[in-house]
Amino acid sequence: MNADTRQRIVMTAMELFWEKGFQSTSISDILSRTQVHSGSLYHFFPGKQDVLAAVLEAYRDGIEEWLLKPAWSGVDDPVERIFALLNGYRTQLVTTDCTYGCPIGSLALELHEPDLRIRELLAINFAQWTDAIQRCLDEAGDRLPADLDRRRLAEFTLTVMEGAIMQARTYRDVACFDRNVAVLREHFDLLLAAARQERVPAE
Amino acid sequence: MNADTRQRIVMTAMELFWEKGFQSTSISDILSRTQVHSGSLYHFFPGKQDVLAAVLEAYRDGIEEWLLKPAWSGVDDPVERIFALLNGYRTQLVTTDCTYGCPIGSLALELHEPDLRIRELLAINFAQWTDAIQRCLDEAGDRLPADLDRRRLAEFTLTVMEGAIMQARTYRDVACFDRNVAVLREHFDLLLAAARQERVPAE
Repeated sequence: MNADTRQRIVMTAMELFWEKGFQSTSISDILSRTQVHSGSLYHFFPGKQDVLAAVLEAYRDGIEEWLLKPAWSGVDDPVERIFALLNGYRTQLVTTDCTYGCPIGSLALELHEPDLRIRELLAINFAQWTDAIQRCLDEAGDRLPADLDRRRLAEFTLTVMEGAIMQARTYRDVACFDRNVAVLREHFDLLLAAARQERVPAE
Repeated sequence: MNADTRQRIVMTAMELFWEKGFQSTSISDILSRTQVHSGSLYHFFPGKQDVLAAVLEAYRDGIEEWLLKPAWSGVDDPVERIFALLNGYRTQLVTTDCTYGCPIGSLALELHEPDLRIRELLAINFAQWTDAIQRCLDEAGDRLPADLDRRRLAEFTLTVMEGAIMQARTYRDVACFDRNVAVLREHFDLLLAAARQERVPAE
């Protein structure tokens, strides 16, 4: 009964919830894949909801290490960082034959009446992702229009990522993801052009 | 054992899958809510997957009657029809205290390995919705840029609807849905402005 066992349970549950969904994963699925005795699991987690909370906490705490760092390595331009992050999801779609789903998004729709703690953890995961995009938009400074609501555009970017994955998965076609990202890119291009207009000094 | 019983089973299953999800709904949930004997259900549907297929067929066949007609009643402008359809989802969010989820979108993420028939029915439902938006975009004619990829923008509109519902549901806040629709509206406004520029006769 050590932190290592707890960690193994959480990582395995993370895998299983992602592969099969939360409802379809049983405690015995987790036990059999971790090779942990039920007593050890119940020592750490009174129930499956508690395992889920720990999984969502792990995603929350892992965003920098697992998601942002790999996507942004070698990418300095803040606008390109946004598309590099989206490209990370594209890679996941390609390597899973388009069966990939964003684990947070899937849980957000799978759980029909999540308890408050779970729903808050889902929201925190979304909010952190949105924060990361907003930092990029803020760093883009006057390359974007002065009156642009950057928080709103960051939320919208999450929306596009989630909706694009949903459709690409359903059509089993990464081209569908690409087309969605292309429209978002068009939107950014229109905003960048509008900001360039703003920066032209008035005569 | 008549068409009426079959219909009652399908409509009840539709309700239950929407309220609780597919995995969490058992055949006995369906039986107890319909007050139908298991023999009658199995007469029509060999298994739960077959009930799901029938539910998805009902959504497919009901899109005009259930979704488009009510949203578009009294709305003639093709661009406004797009936002009227989105507003229909907003109403659903408001009347369900933001627990509403698009039934197709929720199933698309809940089912991790849908069989081919189910996945195709999900895709057909998405494609029909996209078709409806594309018809609006086509009808908008030269109010939108000539070189605009209208199919792609229709897909993107579905993406925004699905992603916005996912976030609004997670935050339990319809304002989040509204902010997403506002960014889509901004995108449309930029496109409409670009097309106006195109239409200005060259000197």
